Amino acid sequence: MTQALRLKKNADRRLKAGHLWLYSNEIDTDATPLKDFEPGAQALVEAAGGKPLGIAYVNPHSLICARVVSRDPSVRLDRSLLVHRFNQALALRERLYAKPFYRLVHGEGDLLPGLVVDRFDDVVVVQLNTLGMERLGEEVVAALDKVLAPRVIVFKNDSSGRRQERLEASVEVVKGSLDGPVLMEENGVRFAVPVLDGQKTGWFYDHRPNRAWLNALVPGKRVLDVFSYVGGWGVQAAAHGASEVLCVDASVPALERVSENAALNGLHERVAVGEGDAFEALSALRAEGERFDVVILDPPAFIKKRKDIASGERAYSRLNREAMRLLGRDGLLLSASCSMHLAPERLVEVVRGAVRHQDRHGQVIFQGHQAGDHPVHPAIPETAYLKALGVRVFRD
Amino acid sequence: MTQALRLKKNADRRLKAGHLWLYSNEIDTDATPLKDFEPGAQALVEAAGGKPLGIAYVNPHSLICARVVSRDPSVRLDRSLLVHRFNQALALRERLYAKPFYRLVHGEGDLLPGLVVDRFDDVVVVQLNTLGMERLGEEVVAALDKVLAPRVIVFKNDSSGRRQERLEASVEVVKGSLDGPVLMEENGVRFAVPVLDGQKTGWFYDHRPNRAWLNALVPGKRVLDVFSYVGGWGVQAAAHGASEVLCVDASVPALERVSENAALNGLHERVAVGEGDAFEALSALRAEGERFDVVILDPPAFIKKRKDIASGERAYSRLNREAMRLLGRDGLLLSASCSMHLAPERLVEVVRGAVRHQDRHGQVIFQGHQAGDHPVHPAIPETAYLKALGVRVFRD
Repeated sequence: MTQALRLKKNADRRLKAGHLWLYSNEIDTDATPLKDFEPGAQALVEAAGGKPLGIAYVNPHSLICARVVSRDPSVRLDRSLLVHRFNQALALRERLYAKPFYRLVHGEGDLLPGLVVDRFDDVVVVQLNTLGMERLGEEVVAALDKVLAPRVIVFKNDSSGRRQERLEASVEVVKGSLDGPVLMEENGVRFAVPVLDGQKTGWFYDHRPNRAWLNALVPGKRVLDVFSYVGGWGVQAAAHGASEVLCVDASVPALERVSENAALNGLHERVAVGEGDAFEALSALRAEGERFDVVILDPPAFIKKRKDIASGERAYSRLNREAMRLLGRDGLLLSASCSMHLAPERLVEVVRGAVRHQDRHGQVIFQGHQAGDHPVHPAIPETAYLKALGVRVFRD
Repeated sequence: MTQALRLKKNADRRLKAGHLWLYSNEIDTDATPLKDFEPGAQALVEAAGGKPLGIAYVNPHSLICARVVSRDPSVRLDRSLLVHRFNQALALRERLYAKPFYRLVHGEGDLLPGLVVDRFDDVVVVQLNTLGMERLGEEVVAALDKVLAPRVIVFKNDSSGRRQERLEASVEVVKGSLDGPVLMEENGVRFAVPVLDGQKTGWFYDHRPNRAWLNALVPGKRVLDVFSYVGGWGVQAAAHGASEVLCVDASVPALERVSENAALNGLHERVAVGEGDAFEALSALRAEGERFDVVILDPPAFIKKRKDIASGERAYSRLNREAMRLLGRDGLLLSASCSMHLAPERLVEVVRGAVRHQDRHGQVIFQGHQAGDHPVHPAIPETAYLKALGVRVFRD
């Protein structure tokens, strides 16, 4: 008999709409005190009247105190259900992509709260971002073995989300062994990805369609890639015909990978790197009178929490203004944001302000979002986070 | 000396932000009565303090009583400026598209309020949607001649926007002659387009990237195209490998074009047509037990005015619910809306409700917008109107 987690009256509305999260203030803690739950255990969610609503795993110490793993009260999230969900997720990716490089599992978007799995062919990188999923780590490995039989499985458990769940950070190769970067391909360009010591899982598959859009517009262009990381945008631009690319990042190891990735595609003569803080680098380039046809801004999330919206928007505005100064007479700005708290129309507003600040004109000719292997759950706005605007900037 | 149009105090804020519209209640009509302006004439817009802000054309009888055509008070919108703007617009399209089939001018998005120009190689279709632009009709033709020297120019002046400007509806071939449909190509598929008696300019270029996205996912699939018009989605799906396509529309002439367009691409055996009201057709298909792998919903705008938002959302909801019933176990819904008043997140909400209504799961794997030849003006939210969601619908 599974322990029951009773909701307060009317607290079942979000769940009924399809959402998967429960907040601690929605629990009837008189009937079912949160402290009675073993952290990470699965519980039977009940409406105030007792109606069973599904199965969730519980973290009494997290603001999101429970996440639904099934609407069927008779099942549990176990190896068997993980295999089923992985197969469902795989079927989507195999429809979307010809090669085995993609995000296989995108947490709530694939009905697996707290779990991220990125696939680089036979190397699979897992993030267990919640306590409930952490407890299922062995089952995740077993289910991945059953569905994909990968050569290597990495637990890249150092996300910021884990801190909120009171989980330690760790990176571990749990199957096989790995020395050095992993080879992968995106939009026809090859990359070596640092899965053990890079950002997140080592690669950001989410921008794939946005990069594909930009790739078509760069032949013969001089391109600046700010916050380049390992060169996802910049090296692809060079591979698609950009005459010259400058990748700027604050991380020397990331820039070393940029150069390696350029060389991997025979592009080392067209891809330069510059180390430094993005804002300082933009100022320095301006002081030197540099001009680019295309500037790519793909910064880290400036807005991590709701309370940071105003300051974060100011940072985006400053960044976009500085970048726009470096554009030639008829230039193209690719302005991205991965901040879930920045609404798409606010990023348009950021761009609008930057265009006006320069007394130029702007045309938003592309509005991109996260790739299809990062599905948005229609009932969970929090699963939609990525924006990429393509903006033509010109003087009339 | 150009007649001045004086704004009320603080009424210049929107213009300063980059917007191009002035509403009649923002005019200092004591200083500059609207009735003193010749309808359609160009005026010098001044802030309350007298500072010149730019040039606008005036329609005293319209809620939007003036639209800015330049921020430079010393110019006028004339043949010369039209040529300049057309060349600017052309430069963008030639970067975006390899072939001469696109929207050349998208009104405010190309700094030409009230003007739409769609290009089908050497046939150009013009919509003059405001009185100010109507008065420049001859200059528009002359400027198009100078920039493109098209064989045929059509004035397709029957838009609903013209009624609000108190303009008559008319369709006229103003240069050359035209008998029958015009040939064009989109995403590698050929179409015959009824520019004289079709909807709008005859073709909807705005969905090009959304169709391209869907085309990659249809091989071997059974596809239903609701509100098919001349087959933009359906015939392209067949051309990209759909095993079977059913196009449904209420217009018999449109369906005749579907069949012609299918035949034009050698696809007549895989494209069937069905005449009828969309809602009735969906019910009938359901009664017959029909199932599809992919359903495309590209309805006309259900929300024409702000006051129709609630009833329009209900219509979108009903449509999406009905369509979802026809999807097989793991289906794909392409749900579009061209209603500017329906916010993108509201269309996600429509889809969410339909998915839940069927007790299925949904994954939004694509969020598309209008094509790059329909640029959004970053200061004019009204220029962003098109949404297309790609939703995987499945049972867990």
